[in-house]
Amino acid sequence: MIERIAILGTGLLGTSVGLALRAAGFRGTISGWNRGSEGAQAALSMGAVDSIGTDALQVAREAQVVLLAVPIYATLDYMERLAPLLGSEHLVTDVGSTKGQITAAAGRLFNTPERAAFLPGHPMAGKERGGAALGDADLFRGAVWLFTDDSSWQRSPHSAELVKGWREWVAAMGSKILDLEPVRHDELVAWVSHLPQFVATALSALLEEEVGAAPELKDVGGRALREMTRLGASPYSMWRDIAYTNTEAIETALAALEQRIAHLRENLRTPELRDEFEQANRFRRE
Amino acid sequence: MIERIAILGTGLLGTSVGLALRAAGFRGTISGWNRGSEGAQAALSMGAVDSIGTDALQVAREAQVVLLAVPIYATLDYMERLAPLLGSEHLVTDVGSTKGQITAAAGRLFNTPERAAFLPGHPMAGKERGGAALGDADLFRGAVWLFTDDSSWQRSPHSAELVKGWREWVAAMGSKILDLEPVRHDELVAWVSHLPQFVATALSALLEEEVGAAPELKDVGGRALREMTRLGASPYSMWRDIAYTNTEAIETALAALEQRIAHLRENLRTPELRDEFEQANRFRRE
Repeated sequence: MIERIAILGTGLLGTSVGLALRAAGFRGTISGWNRGSEGAQAALSMGAVDSIGTDALQVAREAQVVLLAVPIYATLDYMERLAPLLGSEHLVTDVGSTKGQITAAAGRLFNTPERAAFLPGHPMAGKERGGAALGDADLFRGAVWLFTDDSSWQRSPHSAELVKGWREWVAAMGSKILDLEPVRHDELVAWVSHLPQFVATALSALLEEEVGAAPELKDVGGRALREMTRLGASPYSMWRDIAYTNTEAIETALAALEQRIAHLRENLRTPELRDEFEQANRFRRE
Repeated sequence: MIERIAILGTGLLGTSVGLALRAAGFRGTISGWNRGSEGAQAALSMGAVDSIGTDALQVAREAQVVLLAVPIYATLDYMERLAPLLGSEHLVTDVGSTKGQITAAAGRLFNTPERAAFLPGHPMAGKERGGAALGDADLFRGAVWLFTDDSSWQRSPHSAELVKGWREWVAAMGSKILDLEPVRHDELVAWVSHLPQFVATALSALLEEEVGAAPELKDVGGRALREMTRLGASPYSMWRDIAYTNTEAIETALAALEQRIAHLRENLRTPELRDEFEQANRFRRE
């Protein structure tokens, strides 16, 4: 029943969703909008969208499902602007990496019988560099797609159908759906996503200071070093909004890791080191 | 001129050297020894060695080049036992991950005109799990192979030729050779190899505590989390000797990272965060 999808923001994620929908057999129209014309044209030429509009709100109004694939604060801003323009014939969903503020805004602005439905979503997929040109129809294959839907919302039957339809397309793109309560979502991703990113950033920044001036010394670390610093290439522009909207949970996770590293440092020559390695080994055991 | 090579320790590295030598066209004999018979038989059946001896010292005595591919303390132990048995017709070399103690022992026990030569070596290649069965002829391709040779050593002309010959085989296996002074070696690998390992261990151990009980939550992190914790599978048995023989340099690196993470944690909502991301981005710029 979903025939018209609008993707607002044709960066890496938005473009990948368009490509993945086509690969999964979606035959309706996909319209796009992007702040920069380069990303818009790239998405169009790759076949991720059928058309590019110049007015995001107009593009949204003409679709049934509107995917917000922009940074978190831009998502919150579009939620405010779209809510009064759309009705129960619309579903708005998003890909934002933190869900507390977005889910709260969804309850305030959407999800009444007269208003559009909003389904807060978060695909756990990405690359360390963004942009439409890296768009990939397989990006979501095998990845977890989190939703923080609220069962207390009173949606129209039509809205509820759109929500069900979008979840089916997400599954068709190859993702495993997991439903979480928004506070739990933000705590969980602080551990398994934000912590690894900020550690990679700190490690990369430190190593740039220590060995950055001698490129031949970077080679010495080999594959292990490349892997542990790959996320160091991630842009501030994307992570700033995450840091601002999940500050407390990230602080907790970083402080816990600082303590854990200090414990290991103080026990390099004691049997405690064995316990730490064995505990780490357990995490990697299948 | 090198026609007889002995590999003492047919684990991942020893077995890979045997396979890589064959792939590079080495036509002489390769004899092996291993503490456990399973690893010895695996190396033999894979063609990494032509024969397996039961007496490590005898296997060494019959070769021209003896590669010690055992943990660091075992390497130091074999250096003591081999030095009086071998002469200037022999070269002993190793793959130990720290070079301070090994290079000092080489100066004390080897590298006089009457004694065997010892060339301290360290290929920057490995996998997070060991064992002959994972042996790989391409393991050293594109990797850096470090040497901490000491130009003050007075070797016989024959020994010097063996050293030159082994360096040529290392290059033929696809490695890039880099010569470093041993103290500088141990400081450098503390930053680019030991620090990433111990961080991955601390991160994996912490996450095991936080989300280990719920396997579906591990999936949420996706590729980024898998990459940042892959080294968490590394065994204590290998890293204990490294922690013991490079304690101070590792402590320095870990303490510096703790500070860097704390700095980042304290600046999640300030412009300092941008500076950290930009510094990290520089490390990953080609």
